[in-house]
Amino acid sequence: MSVPLPTGGVIPPLVTPRTSDGALDLAALEDVVEHLVAGGVSGLFVLGSSGEVAFLSDADREVILRETVRVSAGRVPVLAGVNDMSTARVIEQIRLAERAGVDALVATAPFYVLPSDREIEEHFRLLAASTPLPIYAYDVPVRVHRKLSPELLVRLGLDGVIAGVKDSSGDDVSFRRLVAQNRAAGKPLVLFTGHEVVVDGALLAGADGVVPGLGNVDPRRYVDLVAAARADDWATARRLQEELNELFEIVFQAQGVGGEAAGLGAFKTALVELGIIGSNRMSAPVPSLSGDAADRIREIVARSAVPVAAR
Amino acid sequence: MSVPLPTGGVIPPLVTPRTSDGALDLAALEDVVEHLVAGGVSGLFVLGSSGEVAFLSDADREVILRETVRVSAGRVPVLAGVNDMSTARVIEQIRLAERAGVDALVATAPFYVLPSDREIEEHFRLLAASTPLPIYAYDVPVRVHRKLSPELLVRLGLDGVIAGVKDSSGDDVSFRRLVAQNRAAGKPLVLFTGHEVVVDGALLAGADGVVPGLGNVDPRRYVDLVAAARADDWATARRLQEELNELFEIVFQAQGVGGEAAGLGAFKTALVELGIIGSNRMSAPVPSLSGDAADRIREIVARSAVPVAAR
Amino acid sequence: MSVPLPTGGVIPPLVTPRTSDGALDLAALEDVVEHLVAGGVSGLFVLGSSGEVAFLSDADREVILRETVRVSAGRVPVLAGVNDMSTARVIEQIRLAERAGVDALVATAPFYVLPSDREIEEHFRLLAASTPLPIYAYDVPVRVHRKLSPELLVRLGLDGVIAGVKDSSGDDVSFRRLVAQNRAAGKPLVLFTGHEVVVDGALLAGADGVVPGLGNVDPRRYVDLVAAARADDWATARRLQEELNELFEIVFQAQGVGGEAAGLGAFKTALVELGIIGSNRMSAPVPSLSGDAADRIREIVARSAVPVAAR
Amino acid sequence: MSVPLPTGGVIPPLVTPRTSDGALDLAALEDVVEHLVAGGVSGLFVLGSSGEVAFLSDADREVILRETVRVSAGRVPVLAGVNDMSTARVIEQIRLAERAGVDALVATAPFYVLPSDREIEEHFRLLAASTPLPIYAYDVPVRVHRKLSPELLVRLGLDGVIAGVKDSSGDDVSFRRLVAQNRAAGKPLVLFTGHEVVVDGALLAGADGVVPGLGNVDPRRYVDLVAAARADDWATARRLQEELNELFEIVFQAQGVGGEAAGLGAFKTALVELGIIGSNRMSAPVPSLSGDAADRIREIVARSAVPVAAR
Repeated sequence: MSVPLPTGGVIPPLVTPRTSDGALDLAALEDVVEHLVAGGVSGLFVLGSSGEVAFLSDADREVILRETVRVSAGRVPVLAGVNDMSTARVIEQIRLAERAGVDALVATAPFYVLPSDREIEEHFRLLAASTPLPIYAYDVPVRVHRKLSPELLVRLGLDGVIAGVKDSSGDDVSFRRLVAQNRAAGKPLVLFTGHEVVVDGALLAGADGVVPGLGNVDPRRYVDLVAAARADDWATARRLQEELNELFEIVFQAQGVGGEAAGLGAFKTALVELGIIGSNRMSAPVPSLSGDAADRIREIVARSAVPVAAR
Repeated sequence: MSVPLPTGGVIPPLVTPRTSDGALDLAALEDVVEHLVAGGVSGLFVLGSSGEVAFLSDADREVILRETVRVSAGRVPVLAGVNDMSTARVIEQIRLAERAGVDALVATAPFYVLPSDREIEEHFRLLAASTPLPIYAYDVPVRVHRKLSPELLVRLGLDGVIAGVKDSSGDDVSFRRLVAQNRAAGKPLVLFTGHEVVVDGALLAGADGVVPGLGNVDPRRYVDLVAAARADDWATARRLQEELNELFEIVFQAQGVGGEAAGLGAFKTALVELGIIGSNRMSAPVPSLSGDAADRIREIVARSAVPVAAR
Repeated sequence: MSVPLPTGGVIPPLVTPRTSDGALDLAALEDVVEHLVAGGVSGLFVLGSSGEVAFLSDADREVILRETVRVSAGRVPVLAGVNDMSTARVIEQIRLAERAGVDALVATAPFYVLPSDREIEEHFRLLAASTPLPIYAYDVPVRVHRKLSPELLVRLGLDGVIAGVKDSSGDDVSFRRLVAQNRAAGKPLVLFTGHEVVVDGALLAGADGVVPGLGNVDPRRYVDLVAAARADDWATARRLQEELNELFEIVFQAQGVGGEAAGLGAFKTALVELGIIGSNRMSAPVPSLSGDAADRIREIVARSAVPVAAR
Repeated sequence: MSVPLPTGGVIPPLVTPRTSDGALDLAALEDVVEHLVAGGVSGLFVLGSSGEVAFLSDADREVILRETVRVSAGRVPVLAGVNDMSTARVIEQIRLAERAGVDALVATAPFYVLPSDREIEEHFRLLAASTPLPIYAYDVPVRVHRKLSPELLVRLGLDGVIAGVKDSSGDDVSFRRLVAQNRAAGKPLVLFTGHEVVVDGALLAGADGVVPGLGNVDPRRYVDLVAAARADDWATARRLQEELNELFEIVFQAQGVGGEAAGLGAFKTALVELGIIGSNRMSAPVPSLSGDAADRIREIVARSAVPVAAR
């Protein structure tokens, strides 16, 4: 029996903890889940980019999904990333996620390939036809190198192909048009921004929620931020956003490394500092942060006074 | 027992034939292999971009590899694309290719992810450490959105990590530098160009061979082109290249479709016209060519008088 | 004697009206200025991208600047775009603008050339050393193909090289960091967003003002939007933004034309419909809008009930 | 009376020498011209990207053109870059070049602006209508961020709008198609490659000539290379190309600087080493090369044994 889908709120994209020798750390994953549920999140997005989905074998993916479903135990819905290169392979990932018992799926346009817009649309229609689970479209041009247009997304929403969108496009003009077109169409889509440092503005613009990588570290302030916005208390929303943005500076501390090492490495390093996980180890070939960068991250985290529920 | 690796020559990236109802067409695959072997190719590259690798499930990938190994029967080496998002997943593809009995592997840098140059280098080193099979680096920025530098490639060659390069970067300046640096290093790498319309120039520059998508259609003229170049008969090499380029116009006939539909769709349509395969059906969600575009492709193929061995 | 510089508010980038035979229409320019001043704007930005600066000869540029300075008559400050390829040529444009009597300058990084970040910084320092007028940095990667980092901009602000920034980068994450770093540095910079459809969010984030192309058409609602935001009345700010966004749909009506034809052509077509200017003629080689696209623009403008002061 | 236009051959894009205090060095410019004419070039391309055109005021541009015309004295034709942002401004540059007495013009598509393909075509038609001088289209996407298609170029050639093309697109596949389409159309265009390290291949493909930045340093070997290719002596052509490519490594010696500093700075440093000019000073804000990078450049030049005519 499926958990009701989120109509908004905070749905962090979970990091995937590893032990210091590189193995999956399921105990730490459980602690991350508890940290997030205690923080008041509306759902858990597993196997997103922040979950290092690209670095995980199918077997590891399935273990992580099963464990998250088990631990969350119906308290919040579990959304699963089903990232792969194109339709047939994504459908295999959907099968894997269905077996694990997740509540919803998150899918990108095909990548590596060179599709037309019509092929991208057909891709999503074929995914939907393959599963009873709701699908969220994940718009992330920095990785997929294609932008999903508001017109396409709303059309897919009206046809029941997708239930919502995670917008990590960094294109706030397009997101604003998506909000407007979605509203004019009767709101078929639930809209999430993936940009954790502009959530107040996105909510003012009409976003329903946020999928913040930084929400792994500090779910509570994101939950409070959304609550303030819903109460039209924009001064509080902005204040919380600014506190979160000071914390977000952790992702800019490592220099000369790749995007995962700097960003996800910072999230993991912060979670170690907070005592949630035991190691900031990354998936090969991504190096783990150490030295000065890690020191600065720890200082920023300490300064931020992140609320962590007693356990 | 493995077949000796190619030191150059023509290694077409095989298309993956489907029946008109979309199933894998292994009989047609066998006919493609025979067409290519009869054309004198030096190897078969299976599961490349031209093989629609991104659209194929693991099960289909394995079937295709096994069938190609069976049919080629040691007459020429079989190289297998092991495309996936990042290291751990590519290593799973390597296992699959090893089980199928291929002779060598072709791997790209990670995609979807955001690696540093050092992580890309470590990726290739981890791949090599995982298998006794030789690995060719596939440089294809239009799909992977990263360029592999000559310095990195030659360093990997000297360290025995890679045996060669398929350069589909479209950057002839960089390729020329790669040739020069490889020669200065004692030629650790065998260098293939992936650009079928400039093979004469690439051979003049020092390429060892070519991986031509169009070689699915007309392997013989590519083989003759390489032979002419090796005999320093550049007038003949150029004439053959120009004939091939007239044939290559097939990929520009379809308008408003994606890259696979236009290019691979044209190769398949031409192979149908030549009687090698039975259908130009593409993998979902890619549409198959029909109508005027297909008509023009057939005319171009007819005009080109492609040599096909009697069977 | 110079007019005090704006500390924020609405500074529309003026369109450059032409008569139906293509000549500069200075009478219409005067009417645009009056429309904007009556709308309550805080300044006039002449020779921006919206002013078709790239299409104007030096002689035409100077005429336009002089006329704007004459007509505005000190009621609001006049900011002049000094766009050219690199430092020496921009300094010539600065001379031209100084002669015309403008109050401030707006400059981009060099384009066409391939500078390092240090060269971009030196470029701005040389511009500042060449003139007593304040300079605003214009960050517009879609045209200049370079992004100005928050670190660079704040450093230039602290050193008195630039007085502010017009951010048309479309990167709301970077803009948010710019706001934060500028505040931490003691607010050396006045920060304007150039994205007219997300002004409420930008103001919530801490922007001081906006340079809205659409402000040519409807300055009043932008002025009211900024006032609402300053009064912390975010519900009103959002409502006005949404009204403006419905009007902004005019820029999406023309299909298959270039960026200037669609966007600036729409602004001009709307101004004709409002009776402010006489022709929507564009600078060669940009076509003027007509037919269905122009009809749809007129309908959108009519529906929007744009406030126009009696004249 | 105009000098006959080149039908191919070597047309170097002249560097713009400066004295060590940054002034234009017309005496050194004269020496560069004599070095090139003595090297056997077929024409002189002044105010190209290699001539730092983007950094030069109109007054400096005119001085340089006049001096080159005076010094070359009809021995070879002078082609002038007329680079500016869009049509009206380019036409002003054409006036300037006409006054200086040049023999032909070299123009890019508009930049900074966002034109449609039709606007780019109209741009070239308006340029041609404004002058009796022949125009060469300069295709340089790395600077202009647009690619000129073979179809457009051949159509402009057939209509007498352009006389030829300088292809610096780095897209050898497109160049090959341009050669083929130009030939099929009756050869309305003279085709030059701008990529100095692949000239042998470009000539084999059907290029008529080359516009090599490195030809400032070593015009003679480029002239010999073209002669060898015309004599179908491809072994010699390749050998000369490889010698030139070893010399071209000078542009890769400086690290962490912009494109002009590394490339043009290397050409100037080499010309100083050869005794042709007195300073490697660049236009502000581009730094001049010094230290280790300059040392390595001098060593490479010394090793290359560049032929310099006695003067």
